[in-house]
Amino acid sequence: MMKKFLNDPFEVTNELVEGFVIANQPNFRKLEGMNVVIKNRIPEKKKATILIGGGSGHEPLFLEFIGKGMGDCAVHGNIFASPSADMIYEGIKAANTADGVIMIYGNYQGDIINFDMAQDMARMDDIRVETVRVWDDVASARPEDKDERRGTSADLFVIKIAGAASELGHGFEEVLRVTTKARDNCRSIGISLTSCTLPAVGEPIFHLGDTEMYVGMGVHGEPGVEIKPLCTADEAARIMFSAVMNDDLKIGEDDEVALIVNSYGSTTRMELLIIIRAMKRLYAEKGIRIHAIEYGDLCTSQEMAGVSFTMMKLDDELKALYDEPAISPGFARVLW
Amino acid sequence: MMKKFLNDPFEVTNELVEGFVIANQPNFRKLEGMNVVIKNRIPEKKKATILIGGGSGHEPLFLEFIGKGMGDCAVHGNIFASPSADMIYEGIKAANTADGVIMIYGNYQGDIINFDMAQDMARMDDIRVETVRVWDDVASARPEDKDERRGTSADLFVIKIAGAASELGHGFEEVLRVTTKARDNCRSIGISLTSCTLPAVGEPIFHLGDTEMYVGMGVHGEPGVEIKPLCTADEAARIMFSAVMNDDLKIGEDDEVALIVNSYGSTTRMELLIIIRAMKRLYAEKGIRIHAIEYGDLCTSQEMAGVSFTMMKLDDELKALYDEPAISPGFARVLW
Repeated sequence: MMKKFLNDPFEVTNELVEGFVIANQPNFRKLEGMNVVIKNRIPEKKKATILIGGGSGHEPLFLEFIGKGMGDCAVHGNIFASPSADMIYEGIKAANTADGVIMIYGNYQGDIINFDMAQDMARMDDIRVETVRVWDDVASARPEDKDERRGTSADLFVIKIAGAASELGHGFEEVLRVTTKARDNCRSIGISLTSCTLPAVGEPIFHLGDTEMYVGMGVHGEPGVEIKPLCTADEAARIMFSAVMNDDLKIGEDDEVALIVNSYGSTTRMELLIIIRAMKRLYAEKGIRIHAIEYGDLCTSQEMAGVSFTMMKLDDELKALYDEPAISPGFARVLW
Repeated sequence: MMKKFLNDPFEVTNELVEGFVIANQPNFRKLEGMNVVIKNRIPEKKKATILIGGGSGHEPLFLEFIGKGMGDCAVHGNIFASPSADMIYEGIKAANTADGVIMIYGNYQGDIINFDMAQDMARMDDIRVETVRVWDDVASARPEDKDERRGTSADLFVIKIAGAASELGHGFEEVLRVTTKARDNCRSIGISLTSCTLPAVGEPIFHLGDTEMYVGMGVHGEPGVEIKPLCTADEAARIMFSAVMNDDLKIGEDDEVALIVNSYGSTTRMELLIIIRAMKRLYAEKGIRIHAIEYGDLCTSQEMAGVSFTMMKLDDELKALYDEPAISPGFARVLW
């Protein structure tokens, strides 16, 4: 039984976007009649602006990752549904205050169709638009078929790196290059403990037994790798660590990484911190250095219980961009 | 049935504190053998250092509210239990790098006993220690009996104001004065939809029907005002708005406030944003200006579903302190 604070279940996206602009005034504005939100001030030195988007229901992703050193414009579809090509096209035109727009979104069929269509429409207006699709979920396809993988919590890292390069005023090609590198250097996997409920449906989208967990399930309930007995935090850390380390990134001694330990919704920060404690040991055993660890509600699936884990391999360039300040309603990194 | 990522349920506080220091390196260190965490660098200009604490299970409160322009030292007890007087005393000694320590914590009997005892011990060492107890929950006692009220999400605002004044190098008395003023200017109320489960128990601590909500329940499941039918987001906003507005603060046209719309755990950011949209209209109708709105998991009760709402009445002094930068793992405010 869904227990949520809602008004009309079919208006949730309109209302949450309106609430976002109110909650974060005076930094953002919404385009009239559509769920497109843009920063009120985009620095003039920017050569590439960053447009992000996808379905709602993953908050803070995507909407709340616009800000300083992050995305410039966000376009939200309904719960778990792509925004329309028209909305994305309006977003591109609004965001194109510089030399062009780089779009970052998760690699899902509905999104691909609409973002591609919007890109074509904008190009007919002679607007430069390029795309970086995020495909980090190692559970969803083999390493050889990376472009069939789903996009999950690595969205945050890809947006962070793109936003930093853009904010520094790097050239369009340069921002596109580092954004693509960030995407290529990320691997993720998740473990779900419970289903979420969709506002318009009001019932769980799948069922798991009281002592079961689903390794590799997607953020919309897509099939995972296997159902296993619920395990300890240390064991969950080991399962996720092995899954990303055994993929094709080839991380070894003296390499450096940044990590995300993400809650899908109702998993507590307490649990994330206990998993982080275990992760630290696993990386130390391999002699791999951890540059930074992000945690919290970052890429959620409504109120699902579960975690996802993302690793980004760093080099000097990515590390420097990573340490640039980022301030957004859903994620901040400011060194002090 | 509890589905959480844990190891030993009786070690959760030790493990989460260890995880916190790892996740946020290099900013913090833990005192050996106790759950006391302190900033590695406390600016020399500080005249008053800020010690915060209480039971675990409310993360990010308290631990994750230490940082720049926030608390300097946090002391955590076990889940929903006060830290021991010994730990608090060690925290005071470690934090006392300046002219004295101001302690901020929620107004609960167990905390009062232990923090008072630690204060006495520290004073015998000639350390200056003063206390500001947070008592914002209007559902827990009448306005005439404010010091019987429970402390809830206003902890964040009181810590924010204290941290700003302390970081600016204001004198001890001055920091104590504005911290007390922040506390006196806050009012809160919560609505719970589900129970949380305690790690060491593994079962819900109370039950609510599928279509019921509990108005005024405390963050440890303490009795509230009344059980009502689950309502819309707009109606929930109105109930909470009325409860804080009808208390004794006397807010009217042209007054200015800061707000918190807090998730108790599994209530989504989507729902918080929809409630914020409604709050904006309610304040606009009264001609009251909203200076800022904070939202998210700020003061949780494990994975409980529900929200709490906090209003702080601002004056020029509080507003200026509010806008000073704050950077902590659980809360950031950096204007851009």
